[in-house]
Amino acid sequence: MIIVMNPNTPEAAIDRVVAEIERMGSHAHLSRGQFRTVIGAVGEEGQIDQNHLASLDGVEKVVPIMMPYKLASREFHEDDSVVEIGGGSVPKVKVGAQHAMCIAGPCAVENPQMLRKIAGIVRDGGATVLRGGAFKPRTSPYSFQGHGEEALKWMRDTGDELGMPICTEVMDTRQVELIERYTDAFQIGARNMQNFDLLREVGKTRKPVVLKRGLAATVKDWLLSAEYVLSQGNRGVILCERGIKTFEDSVRYTLDITSIPVAKQLSHLPMIVDPSHAAGKRDYVPAIAAAGIAAGAHGIIVEVHYCPGEAQCDGPQALLPETFKELMGQLRQIAAIFKKEFAEIAEPLTV
Amino acid sequence: MIIVMNPNTPEAAIDRVVAEIERMGSHAHLSRGQFRTVIGAVGEEGQIDQNHLASLDGVEKVVPIMMPYKLASREFHEDDSVVEIGGGSVPKVKVGAQHAMCIAGPCAVENPQMLRKIAGIVRDGGATVLRGGAFKPRTSPYSFQGHGEEALKWMRDTGDELGMPICTEVMDTRQVELIERYTDAFQIGARNMQNFDLLREVGKTRKPVVLKRGLAATVKDWLLSAEYVLSQGNRGVILCERGIKTFEDSVRYTLDITSIPVAKQLSHLPMIVDPSHAAGKRDYVPAIAAAGIAAGAHGIIVEVHYCPGEAQCDGPQALLPETFKELMGQLRQIAAIFKKEFAEIAEPLTV
Amino acid sequence: MIIVMNPNTPEAAIDRVVAEIERMGSHAHLSRGQFRTVIGAVGEEGQIDQNHLASLDGVEKVVPIMMPYKLASREFHEDDSVVEIGGGSVPKVKVGAQHAMCIAGPCAVENPQMLRKIAGIVRDGGATVLRGGAFKPRTSPYSFQGHGEEALKWMRDTGDELGMPICTEVMDTRQVELIERYTDAFQIGARNMQNFDLLREVGKTRKPVVLKRGLAATVKDWLLSAEYVLSQGNRGVILCERGIKTFEDSVRYTLDITSIPVAKQLSHLPMIVDPSHAAGKRDYVPAIAAAGIAAGAHGIIVEVHYCPGEAQCDGPQALLPETFKELMGQLRQIAAIFKKEFAEIAEPLTV
Amino acid sequence: MIIVMNPNTPEAAIDRVVAEIERMGSHAHLSRGQFRTVIGAVGEEGQIDQNHLASLDGVEKVVPIMMPYKLASREFHEDDSVVEIGGGSVPKVKVGAQHAMCIAGPCAVENPQMLRKIAGIVRDGGATVLRGGAFKPRTSPYSFQGHGEEALKWMRDTGDELGMPICTEVMDTRQVELIERYTDAFQIGARNMQNFDLLREVGKTRKPVVLKRGLAATVKDWLLSAEYVLSQGNRGVILCERGIKTFEDSVRYTLDITSIPVAKQLSHLPMIVDPSHAAGKRDYVPAIAAAGIAAGAHGIIVEVHYCPGEAQCDGPQALLPETFKELMGQLRQIAAIFKKEFAEIAEPLTV
Repeated sequence: MIIVMNPNTPEAAIDRVVAEIERMGSHAHLSRGQFRTVIGAVGEEGQIDQNHLASLDGVEKVVPIMMPYKLASREFHEDDSVVEIGGGSVPKVKVGAQHAMCIAGPCAVENPQMLRKIAGIVRDGGATVLRGGAFKPRTSPYSFQGHGEEALKWMRDTGDELGMPICTEVMDTRQVELIERYTDAFQIGARNMQNFDLLREVGKTRKPVVLKRGLAATVKDWLLSAEYVLSQGNRGVILCERGIKTFEDSVRYTLDITSIPVAKQLSHLPMIVDPSHAAGKRDYVPAIAAAGIAAGAHGIIVEVHYCPGEAQCDGPQALLPETFKELMGQLRQIAAIFKKEFAEIAEPLTV
Repeated sequence: MIIVMNPNTPEAAIDRVVAEIERMGSHAHLSRGQFRTVIGAVGEEGQIDQNHLASLDGVEKVVPIMMPYKLASREFHEDDSVVEIGGGSVPKVKVGAQHAMCIAGPCAVENPQMLRKIAGIVRDGGATVLRGGAFKPRTSPYSFQGHGEEALKWMRDTGDELGMPICTEVMDTRQVELIERYTDAFQIGARNMQNFDLLREVGKTRKPVVLKRGLAATVKDWLLSAEYVLSQGNRGVILCERGIKTFEDSVRYTLDITSIPVAKQLSHLPMIVDPSHAAGKRDYVPAIAAAGIAAGAHGIIVEVHYCPGEAQCDGPQALLPETFKELMGQLRQIAAIFKKEFAEIAEPLTV
Repeated sequence: MIIVMNPNTPEAAIDRVVAEIERMGSHAHLSRGQFRTVIGAVGEEGQIDQNHLASLDGVEKVVPIMMPYKLASREFHEDDSVVEIGGGSVPKVKVGAQHAMCIAGPCAVENPQMLRKIAGIVRDGGATVLRGGAFKPRTSPYSFQGHGEEALKWMRDTGDELGMPICTEVMDTRQVELIERYTDAFQIGARNMQNFDLLREVGKTRKPVVLKRGLAATVKDWLLSAEYVLSQGNRGVILCERGIKTFEDSVRYTLDITSIPVAKQLSHLPMIVDPSHAAGKRDYVPAIAAAGIAAGAHGIIVEVHYCPGEAQCDGPQALLPETFKELMGQLRQIAAIFKKEFAEIAEPLTV
Repeated sequence: MIIVMNPNTPEAAIDRVVAEIERMGSHAHLSRGQFRTVIGAVGEEGQIDQNHLASLDGVEKVVPIMMPYKLASREFHEDDSVVEIGGGSVPKVKVGAQHAMCIAGPCAVENPQMLRKIAGIVRDGGATVLRGGAFKPRTSPYSFQGHGEEALKWMRDTGDELGMPICTEVMDTRQVELIERYTDAFQIGARNMQNFDLLREVGKTRKPVVLKRGLAATVKDWLLSAEYVLSQGNRGVILCERGIKTFEDSVRYTLDITSIPVAKQLSHLPMIVDPSHAAGKRDYVPAIAAAGIAAGAHGIIVEVHYCPGEAQCDGPQALLPETFKELMGQLRQIAAIFKKEFAEIAEPLTV
């Protein structure tokens, strides 16, 4: 940690900072410039209280050097992690390193028939994990809020029938136990990326967690949230870039393609993109998905609907079946250029 | 609601949109321009599914006309609301309309002695409600997370002794019942502004809720979150502007002063500002607080510490006792220009 | 244009709006809802003064329906434009529709030797247009500001020798004439995207203009700036996405990949990406460039240096020769998936 | 300057960085931690090329310690600057330290009659400097662009008649000479804050410059732009906060009140606010203006129109005469709390 002092700080204030650093078990190195003194705190950065130092007299700013996350960091885990979703009643699907995958399905699970139909379509198009919302976060209290446990049962049955692991969103600490009973992977939405109690609860389970990036979060904030899950012993975190807020008003969010090489440089965790929620409009989904894979993502999570005009939520962003299939073909080709391979379902299925 | 069609949309698609609008119980008005057709849906906007219309063929965009919140809106509640905090073992403090108030205290409650000392200081300086964190949201899983129920007890005792209602943050649906037992008002932090389950749970209580604006939320998003609380029957929502994320890097957040006249025009709810979390640095707190009152806010919530260098969290932003007292004097003068008055504690207290 | 009136607006105010719309030569359609009246103005939108309507009594908001740019819009020019750079002493290079291209070179032109060496390297790697800065926009008045006309001469000579058209930035209206004499294409930097006098001046020339998107501009703002150039008779506008400001602090700017499908849907103009200025760090450049081409861009503009540690500006973002060559191979493969082809220089050159 | 090296950087790379720092005339201090080495460069920071260091092998990041602006900085100029506008045919008006002032007038100068009428109104209400646009920056090439030199003449005549210095916007280096002949102060718009050639040209004159903050600029960027003007010998820079882009869509821009205490801490330059362009809507202007003065600004620049529905541009944001007068009364009271005084015109004028 580096502590920059104000110009003309009295010696006593400098001495106090040095004493505090040493009290915390680190060594202090002083560099005295013409105008300012800069103090380096050398030692275990985790033991130094940055906030405390920042509030001492004469301190202009404190610059941390080490990353504040350890388990998520590539510094202590050089190789790419590979996370597995599924097992038990469904096959395992790998993601990370050279393994890419596609999670697809409807936005909300509306009834067993539509779910089964869409699941068949996405399986046929190349998806290996089935997604669907049972509990829906809605900005208005008057909007449709999901079918809850019933929807979870329909998902479990459909996943088992088609041999696809399932993935669904958890929004509240009180739902973790229920959802864990049904799902193969949790999804944490952008608005809950810093719901720290929820992160801790899913961290106590051993099911993988697709952790979406917050709408105004930096990559560092995101990795700190991943650290919350990892610190509870759950190593199955899959980062998911789903777009950030920007001034561009022709789309809902702006998928931040640069977060892919950045997060991959800082962290060993697998990383996928969600082009549907970023764009909010199906016309733009294929271009964004292709960009994500070209930038190095390990897969996509995407919404598909055979009749988007009837969807109970987010219809405008759902891909049509034929577009989805064509897109998957392109993504496989792009992945191949970068030596990645999309998981496939071995045996064909008569849908 | 207004539906703008793409140029050259076939008649059949226009007919479909009209039919859907009428199926939902509204009337459709067509305006045919040289290049485009625009359809107005006239009726109860709440009954029209905007998302559904947006996903129909030929629809370019859908523009809602009515505000999506009703209980928070000034359209159906013209006069300013006045919310009361306290009652029972402590006096009631009013906020809203011409009533201003100051909530003050430490960031985190560290022990009964420091809490009692700071409470005395802020009461003496002009605060009428005591704040303090028992459960702390921290971006890092390795930071101090608060003293929990014990801290709540210390707060209750101190509030009762000094005749000050207390206010503390709730972060998780599972804490609502516990905190309700001790506190006079809930605080919902910026990161939880769209934690919809939490909003609903505090909405079921009858204790006032200080609802902080999310870091990237618009005023409309914020009022929709207020609507979640109000829709459960709790009418005691106090909006709290605490700064939004911007590109300015010399402060933590940018207090959005304009949100005050905007929210006051759209809504009847009382509105306060939190200059401490916005600035993140005590030097800037007085200027921001003064700006908030000048822009029309009904009060402030502010952190004070007699020895910020020892605070367990957010020390750099805590005001010193003498600065707090001087600031309160200035705020009273500014409020008077705009015919508002800060609540005062009648009898002096020997601290 | 649609004019939404406040609730309970008196009839006289509504009549005034209708009268103004008709005075401007359009027809007014009224839709009276339960709470509000909405007025559609049908006719040539360009003739209606939106600002004027917005300032009339009782008007809540004015929603334009038509795009405010015509020449840049795909509504009146359905097919993709193809722009040609070069001619005369150098070959013509096409960009737009199925034609992709790479513009490459150093950030600043430092001396004839380094320029010649880098030009040879990028030509060899697959670039067909040479870039280089003669006048440099610098945020600090104390930084290196470029070699001016001398650098333009070096660029012209090198371009002619290697058979590559050249492209350089213009920053001031007073430079237009000088730069026009040497260059094959102008570049307008992000900070000048709304320097309207400059846009008009380059619009009066007949050399193509690479128009970078402003750091906080929407796609619509950008197309309006393109309209300034187009409206002067210069049809050679090439849009260049170079990243927007976001809260992410691990890169300089965030390349907005979504702007590619959005701008291509709204406009017929060719569009390239600048991964170097977006990332500000060479490690991230290949991933961003690949994402740009996968999202549908017609090419890249990129900085290359054989010894970035010696560059006079922006060294950290310059690609090394071997990385550039490998990247171009990948981009050609991605382009092929989407049926685009990068321009190539026919005869090999011994560098 | 502080240079943080990557973990496990080889000694040779560290030696290279040290050698480069010493070659540039500074001393290098090494701090070797368990994981990383940090190098402090002690000496004249202006002589160190940050970019160059950042591009060396093994360098993770470079953190500057000193401010990159000197003339604008309070480090070398402790007391508040006072700038004078006017002199010659009109009285001098002071701004800075305890001197506040109000610049007011129409957005665009439309004709001599309206200008004279508005000038009389604002003078009567308490403005001491007259503003008005002769050249207008417009995002659309098809909008009204101002009356040019004729409007300058009208302004000069009106200012002389009423004893008010005048202030008008300059947009292009080619206009500097012309505008200098007529005006008492230049205004640089937000979109030109980084038009470095323009900054240099007005810096060569000796007329004060009202420098608006860019829509996405940090305070540091802004002070660097001020430095461009100051470095040419013109010490009359007046900073003007006019709002930044944020996600809030109910106003045009968000006036960043925090920039006032921040800029005043970093710099000695006077600072005013522009509530009209920030809000874009007259309803919000008084609250924002009051907040600006409460936060410590040295005045406002505001648009006033007696009949905003007829204004040729920005009518919706112009204050009505009576509101302006009432607002000025409130601002004087707020300023008095903070020991500032608004300049007044001694003798009353019969308008």
